[in-house]
Amino acid sequence: MSLAGICNTDLEITQGYMGFHGVLGHEFVGLVEQAEDPSWVGQRVVGEINCACEACPTCRRGDTPHCPNRTTLGIGGRDGSLAEFCVLPLRNLHRVPKAVSDRQAVFVEPLAAALEIPEQTHIRPSERVVVIGDGKLGLLVAQALRLTGCALLVVGRHQPKLDILARQGIEVRLEKDVSGAGWADIVVDCTGHPGGFVLARRLVRPRGRLALKSTVHEQENPLGAGGVSLSMMVVDEIRVIGSRCGPFGPALRLLSLGLIDAESLVEAEYSLDQGLAAFAHASRRGALKVLVRP
Amino acid sequence: MSLAGICNTDLEITQGYMGFHGVLGHEFVGLVEQAEDPSWVGQRVVGEINCACEACPTCRRGDTPHCPNRTTLGIGGRDGSLAEFCVLPLRNLHRVPKAVSDRQAVFVEPLAAALEIPEQTHIRPSERVVVIGDGKLGLLVAQALRLTGCALLVVGRHQPKLDILARQGIEVRLEKDVSGAGWADIVVDCTGHPGGFVLARRLVRPRGRLALKSTVHEQENPLGAGGVSLSMMVVDEIRVIGSRCGPFGPALRLLSLGLIDAESLVEAEYSLDQGLAAFAHASRRGALKVLVRP
Repeated sequence: MSLAGICNTDLEITQGYMGFHGVLGHEFVGLVEQAEDPSWVGQRVVGEINCACEACPTCRRGDTPHCPNRTTLGIGGRDGSLAEFCVLPLRNLHRVPKAVSDRQAVFVEPLAAALEIPEQTHIRPSERVVVIGDGKLGLLVAQALRLTGCALLVVGRHQPKLDILARQGIEVRLEKDVSGAGWADIVVDCTGHPGGFVLARRLVRPRGRLALKSTVHEQENPLGAGGVSLSMMVVDEIRVIGSRCGPFGPALRLLSLGLIDAESLVEAEYSLDQGLAAFAHASRRGALKVLVRP
Repeated sequence: MSLAGICNTDLEITQGYMGFHGVLGHEFVGLVEQAEDPSWVGQRVVGEINCACEACPTCRRGDTPHCPNRTTLGIGGRDGSLAEFCVLPLRNLHRVPKAVSDRQAVFVEPLAAALEIPEQTHIRPSERVVVIGDGKLGLLVAQALRLTGCALLVVGRHQPKLDILARQGIEVRLEKDVSGAGWADIVVDCTGHPGGFVLARRLVRPRGRLALKSTVHEQENPLGAGGVSLSMMVVDEIRVIGSRCGPFGPALRLLSLGLIDAESLVEAEYSLDQGLAAFAHASRRGALKVLVRP
C-alpha cells in the first residue's frame, strides 16, 4: 500500500455497520508485491473492492459487483487497505497511468462510485440536476456531473466546502436557502442522513429521478409517517435509483485528463501508526478526506 | 453581428444544398441592437437558428426545432448571420456570460449540435465510443464526449487535426490504421461523406448505436448495393440516431467552465468585405474554422 483513504463507510463500520471485524479500508493505491502473473509485479495499481465468485448466475450475466457470494475489501469477509499489504484478485486491479499521482489515485474508488450515477441513468445536458450533500462523495459527484453540461446546483450545509466547488464555476447554495419544489429533473442524495432524502423528494419533478448514494441507518428510515410518502411517489411517478460502486476505468480516464480536482479534497495525511488519530480527525464534523500512508 | 463562423453547411449551400437563396451564416455572436423588450438591448447574445411557429402540434409537444413551419437562420426562409445585422425572435437568444469570449461564443451553435448526441442517447462512462471525422464538428464532438469519461477513439484522415485532440489526451488514429469490427458501443459519424457511415457500421457492435451528424448527398447514398446492408443492420439490431441541432444552454455552460477548447479550432479571421476570400479559405481541404468579422 502506498496511500489509503478513510471513507465515511469506515467510520460507520467502527459504529457497527455491516458487522465487519477485520482490517478497515477500501480506498488505496499501491504497488504489486506478489502475483501469479509476474508481469503485474511492481505495477502501481488501484483495485475494485468487490471480489466475486465468477460462477453464480449473477456473475455469469456480467454483474460481478452484485455477486451474492462476494467478499468486499475492508467491508465484508476480506481485510482492507489500511495496512502495509492487502490481497485482491488480479482481475480487480487497474494500472494507474503516470499522469495520475498517488494522492489522485486514492480517489479512484469514490470517483468510480460517483460515476455510477451517469452509468445508471441518462443525464441529458439540458437537464436540471441537484446534488445534495457537500461531503467528500458529494463534492466528487458534483465534479463528475458538471462535465455533462447539465444545469447543476449543489446544496450543502458547509459554506467552506461549497466554496471548493464555487471556485470551479459550479452553482452552490446552503440548504436553508433552497426554495421551491418539483423543479429538478434529477436529484442525487449524498448526505448520509435521512433529511437528504426528504429534501431530494421535495425538489424532484413529477417523473423525475432520485439517485441515492446515502446508506442511512434503518432506524432513521425517512419513508412513512412524518417523512416521505411512498404513495405520493407513485402518484408523481418518481424513479428511485440506488447507487453504490462504479466503473474504475472512467475514473482513471477523467483523472488522467485533469478533469477532476481530487487533491483539493485532501484535508490531512497520517502515517499508519497514527491510525487512531487519523480516524479521530476523519470523524470531525465537516472533515474532508483524511489519508493514511502505510 | 460581432463575429460569425463559416460551417460546412454554408459551403454545401453554395453548391445547391437546401435550395436556399439569401444571406448565409448561422453561427454568430452579436449585440442586440433593437428588441421589443428593451432589457435585451445591448446584451451580448448567441441565437438558436430554428424559428418555430409555436402553434402547430410539433411545437405544442415542445419540439420546436422540428416545427414543420420553421425558418432556419441562413439555411431556409431567413437571412443569416454573415452580415452586419440579422433578425431572430427573442426566445431564440441566449445571453453570453463574461467568461466566454467572442471567439469561443461563435462556437456555441456547433458545440450545441455536438451536445445533441449525449442529449439523445445515454453514453455510459464505461462504454467504448468512436468518433469518425476530424473536421470542425468532429473535433467538437470529440471534446464534448471525452467529458463522459468513456473510452474514446477519434478516427480521421488528417494527422495535424488529430494532433489537436491528442494534445488534450484523447486517443486518435488515422482511418487507414483502424482495424477490427463490431467492438464499439457507440460510433458517431461526423465525416460528411458516405465512407464514414460504412466505417461506422463496421466498427459498431451488435445492439450498438450509430449517431449520424453527416448530411450526405442523396446520390452518394451508402445504403444498398456495395455499401451498408440494411438487412444486416436488422440482424445485428443496430440503432441509428439522426442528430442535428442541440441545446445552447449546456454549450454555454461547458465553455464558461473552460472544459471545451474552441479557440484551437480557429484557422483564420476575415472582414465581411473579404467574404469571398473567407469562403475560398474555408473550402480548402482540411481547413478548420474560418471566422468573419462584420
